[in-house]
Amino acid sequence: MKKFLIPYCLLCMLCGGINMAYAADEYNQNNGMIVRISEIEVYPEYFDEYLTFAKEVAENSVAKEPGVIAIYPMMKIKNNEQIRILEIYQDDNAYKKHIASEHFKHYKTGTLHMVKSLDLVDMYQISPQAFVKVFKKAEE
Amino acid sequence: MKKFLIPYCLLCMLCGGINMAYAADEYNQNNGMIVRISEIEVYPEYFDEYLTFAKEVAENSVAKEPGVIAIYPMMKIKNNEQIRILEIYQDDNAYKKHIASEHFKHYKTGTLHMVKSLDLVDMYQISPQAFVKVFKKAEE
Repeated sequence: MKKFLIPYCLLCMLCGGINMAYAADEYNQNNGMIVRISEIEVYPEYFDEYLTFAKEVAENSVAKEPGVIAIYPMMKIKNNEQIRILEIYQDDNAYKKHIASEHFKHYKTGTLHMVKSLDLVDMYQISPQAFVKVFKKAEE
Repeated sequence: MKKFLIPYCLLCMLCGGINMAYAADEYNQNNGMIVRISEIEVYPEYFDEYLTFAKEVAENSVAKEPGVIAIYPMMKIKNNEQIRILEIYQDDNAYKKHIASEHFKHYKTGTLHMVKSLDLVDMYQISPQAFVKVFKKAEE
């Protein structure tokens, strides 16, 4: 079996290299930021309660955490239980701090039983150079 | 048949009233704004070309149109051909101006053959009072 060891190690190194290249590309496209659309479906019986939690965690996170650039929760007009949250974090470290924060843990544990499905869909920005431009009117 | 005419008219008036109430509620939730996630799939062979159009129309629209608050195009990291665009317009009038603009018409006609599917998903904001807050760091 020893004769397979070296090719196996080489393959592992190669795959590791590819993964690193992919990660580097991803971070370049997003200027180091994490950009995500969280797709959430909530059980109808908890709908109103869920909204209170979502609103609270969005506002607290952006107000208290310098690395949280945007947490923008929405619901489909035609199907209110389908929630979409645009989340933008400055970098991986900001995201780790966010999920370790008291307000996030309060939201997460408080809503666990309300959530029917959850899909965290990571995104590349298409216009990374124009990030400031495409939101420039949010302050007006 | 005449005996059904009055109840029918009353029913129509009632339904009209419900629709109006729904529309009023919608505009109240979004402070008059139109909030949308456009879900687009592009044909792989036109992918790069599509990105150029999407980037251009996003930047031009936000720069040139006071009523366009955000056009933020993204693509899924795990499936690049799946495009998502967060669009926020000041009001219905701003949206009408946008789709009549030269840059939007250039994008629309230029990409028509590149788009495999298109779904305009209208959204309510969950935290309308905090719109400025949840994007307040976009300028930093």
